[in-house]
Amino acid sequence: MVLYIIGLGMGTEDDITLRGLNAVKSCTRVYLEAYTSILCVGKEKLEALYGKEVTLASREMVESESDTILDGAKEGNVAMLVVGDPVCATTHTDMMIRARELDIPVEVIHNASVMGAAGSCGLHLYNFGATVSIPYFTEGWRPYSFWEKTAYNRKGGMHTLALLDIKTKEPDFEALAKGKKVYLPPRFMSVNVALEQMLEAAESKGEEEGNYSKDTMCVGMARLGQKDQCIKVGSIEELLKEDFGEPLHCLVICADDVHELELEAMKHYIVAGSRYA
Amino acid sequence: MVLYIIGLGMGTEDDITLRGLNAVKSCTRVYLEAYTSILCVGKEKLEALYGKEVTLASREMVESESDTILDGAKEGNVAMLVVGDPVCATTHTDMMIRARELDIPVEVIHNASVMGAAGSCGLHLYNFGATVSIPYFTEGWRPYSFWEKTAYNRKGGMHTLALLDIKTKEPDFEALAKGKKVYLPPRFMSVNVALEQMLEAAESKGEEEGNYSKDTMCVGMARLGQKDQCIKVGSIEELLKEDFGEPLHCLVICADDVHELELEAMKHYIVAGSRYA
Repeated sequence: MVLYIIGLGMGTEDDITLRGLNAVKSCTRVYLEAYTSILCVGKEKLEALYGKEVTLASREMVESESDTILDGAKEGNVAMLVVGDPVCATTHTDMMIRARELDIPVEVIHNASVMGAAGSCGLHLYNFGATVSIPYFTEGWRPYSFWEKTAYNRKGGMHTLALLDIKTKEPDFEALAKGKKVYLPPRFMSVNVALEQMLEAAESKGEEEGNYSKDTMCVGMARLGQKDQCIKVGSIEELLKEDFGEPLHCLVICADDVHELELEAMKHYIVAGSRYA
Repeated sequence: MVLYIIGLGMGTEDDITLRGLNAVKSCTRVYLEAYTSILCVGKEKLEALYGKEVTLASREMVESESDTILDGAKEGNVAMLVVGDPVCATTHTDMMIRARELDIPVEVIHNASVMGAAGSCGLHLYNFGATVSIPYFTEGWRPYSFWEKTAYNRKGGMHTLALLDIKTKEPDFEALAKGKKVYLPPRFMSVNVALEQMLEAAESKGEEEGNYSKDTMCVGMARLGQKDQCIKVGSIEELLKEDFGEPLHCLVICADDVHELELEAMKHYIVAGSRYA
């Protein structure tokens, strides 16, 4: 009947909309996509609120086995729950296209996402340029591609939202070599690791236009939209010493020209002793 | 006690989150800010859902008389309801700063906004550059400042979301001259008017790098996030002939380089006979 793709927002089970909750209640099967972001409550909380069983959907399931999920959607409604907003990640596009091919109506129910909530720090969202992703560097793989976009944004007077790497369901290659299929514990990149990597990229570029330095104003944010969200403003050097607590973290690298109304709204979050205080 | 600033999302009364609804129910006074966007239901619907009276707050009230709204917030909770997400518009910043000065705790409850829902068309949100606003041109005032940002975005391979002018509570100067204070009916810019104005700006710029033309791919969107939302993809010339229906409208001017996964997801929305079909 209908494939609902429903945003859960960024906090707890109570961040679903009334429209989203009504849709879930009409469904015969409910899936939760939980690999591009994390919910800060267990799926039991969702099940208690919905009065329904919720099935965790892995990346493979969402990206490659959408027919399994869509199977039966002609007879009863199916819900795919997504942390944040469904159209902010791109992982559900395939499923939507597949549903249309099968003549299953798709209804997207929006919610808050990090791309909107990033405005909580006081920077104006319409001044943000392209968003970058910061992957975990390894010894032999240190891609600086986020640097180009960040520098281009800064040259044009735009801020840059950086989304930080999440590693879930990573195979443990040591165990694999011994014939055991084991996954490593999930990892969520901290603001501190991201800033270190971004600084490494900046230092490799030198005097190029749009480059940032350890003195550039940044905003570190953690658990945005949750009751205990943490927002700190300072230079890269200053924020490297700060603790942002539990995941998820994200980061904004400011343009050199921060509007005075933005500064006024950010004042509240500047770290003690900052060069920007 | 607490000043809640609560996003209502983009559709009807059911788009509030459970957390938002619980907060409203705890409040002694509830205001609705309704001049930067429009809700597609009357405030009576909200009042019926909340079981509370809702007071419409004008621009002057929100921006200049925040003390009236905050008055009493030390004794009981106060809610300011905002269409979309509270941090996507910048109009509530003053009120938040003022509340902090008065030692009133502020809690923001996020929701979906046009800046997130713009991804519904299939373009990837992380490829969007700075957002532009298109004001109604008048005979003597035709500012092309949106052109600079759009061209810079396009040069850098980024899409541009254009938010379209809303005129509410405009004084009727003819009536005013006769000593009567009368307001003109509200006006909401259509995709068509916006495209005409954007094309005028482009034609005045000629061959400059990043410029767009009547053949550039655009996305016209209306009533995003509502059940009858309308999304159409085509060249500027093609979309000028399309009807998008009731407000609110918004618009995306694409980068020249649209990713094949974006194209795949947009196919569904391309207008019949388009050069992009």
